Amino acid sequence: MEKLSIVKIGGAVLEAADSFRDFMLEFSKISGNKILVHGGGRTATQIAEKLGIISRIIDGRRITDEGMMEVVTMVYGGLINKKSVAFLQSLGCNAIGLAGADLDLIRAVRRPVGEIDYGLVGDISKVNSAALRMLLTQNMVPVIAPLTYDGNGNLLNTNADTIASEVAAALSDTFQVSLIYCFEKEGVMLDVNDETSLIKAMNKKLFEQYRIEGIIHSGMLPKLENCFKALEAGVNEVIITNSKLIQTKSGTRLTL
Amino acid sequence: MEKLSIVKIGGAVLEAADSFRDFMLEFSKISGNKILVHGGGRTATQIAEKLGIISRIIDGRRITDEGMMEVVTMVYGGLINKKSVAFLQSLGCNAIGLAGADLDLIRAVRRPVGEIDYGLVGDISKVNSAALRMLLTQNMVPVIAPLTYDGNGNLLNTNADTIASEVAAALSDTFQVSLIYCFEKEGVMLDVNDETSLIKAMNKKLFEQYRIEGIIHSGMLPKLENCFKALEAGVNEVIITNSKLIQTKSGTRLTL
Repeated sequence: MEKLSIVKIGGAVLEAADSFRDFMLEFSKISGNKILVHGGGRTATQIAEKLGIISRIIDGRRITDEGMMEVVTMVYGGLINKKSVAFLQSLGCNAIGLAGADLDLIRAVRRPVGEIDYGLVGDISKVNSAALRMLLTQNMVPVIAPLTYDGNGNLLNTNADTIASEVAAALSDTFQVSLIYCFEKEGVMLDVNDETSLIKAMNKKLFEQYRIEGIIHSGMLPKLENCFKALEAGVNEVIITNSKLIQTKSGTRLTL
Repeated sequence: MEKLSIVKIGGAVLEAADSFRDFMLEFSKISGNKILVHGGGRTATQIAEKLGIISRIIDGRRITDEGMMEVVTMVYGGLINKKSVAFLQSLGCNAIGLAGADLDLIRAVRRPVGEIDYGLVGDISKVNSAALRMLLTQNMVPVIAPLTYDGNGNLLNTNADTIASEVAAALSDTFQVSLIYCFEKEGVMLDVNDETSLIKAMNKKLFEQYRIEGIIHSGMLPKLENCFKALEAGVNEVIITNSKLIQTKSGTRLTL
């Protein structure tokens, strides 16, 4: 099977001009099939604030009313996506920016209202892997914004980590997929304040132990759940690393 | 040669929910190959105002500084483009939203500073017709935002009428192209205040006469120049009509 690298980059890395450039340069150097999935929450929060829209985030998940949906459509689908595509094109990478509605790529169901009403937030129901494969065979590099599609004319807001995991899972039957989550840290740390405490490898058992011990908590929990979900779905390797180290594949390697 | 319809829709039609739906429904009914090019200037002006950015427009052309470039990237590339794609998908139209940087589709050169410095405004230098043809042969419906690419990592702001004309011209050697500009009026009017004064046909000579007589002026001048430019480049037919009448092809028909 052909190799495919799927890289998820957080909004924080893309915010500063320097780290944006450094990351895009590293990403452009990955050989073969590749897909970029980006976030952008911080920029969305800033733009929303300027527009007088208040951001409400619970457990790392954004409550998305209609006004906020317009903001994330603008910021994720427009500002961050198109800027990334333009810069990648200048590096010789044939990028094409996409959201879940384009080619009906990522279908989602609006999250049912439970204790919390997340609003226009989508849980992924189907990835159009045939369309993504077609783009990849044409040597295109999909750059995916974290917006999904409800099949009924509306966009929904979906976490970028989850999109990366679901896209990786959907393509794992026809590609040997490496899923790389990258951010500002070197990987998952035993102690976030200790740079030398990198966890180089973690299987599901160790993850459960760390979770119970409270070593892993908050936003890292759903991220790691996405990682293990991808591995269980047949993704070849999953790595959490620094945005400058995606070529070396150092960082935290997850295994089942 | 296969037929291709290229429809340009102005931002005003897309602003109101009713006219947006009506237009998209009409567009979705066009059979065969088709491309949608949209504007969005009014929405950009509104969002810019909320963000405290002042819009300066000279002869229908927007002065685009860095802040305004971010706004149009968000509004054209994100908000309007992705909303249109999502709605078209719900109508069974396999839409894919694109800006000039995606697949290096529309290259432009930053307009030289003359009497006016338009800022980050691009004059089109090359349309990647091979990439557009490839998408069309895959039965995709490109939905193009009025953003071009400088080949050097940056987006530029380009008038949507011009993009429609240049894309039509670039594809006219491999398709029998119908270029349809649509807006709120029935077509070009002898007297904008008289609904019965529709000009049903206009050749270049008549256009020159109307221009000299001052019957055609302001924003209609560059629009018509784009129309004749497309015809001269080999586009099969050019029509200016109402957004509800794109199927009937009534309105003002331009000829050389």
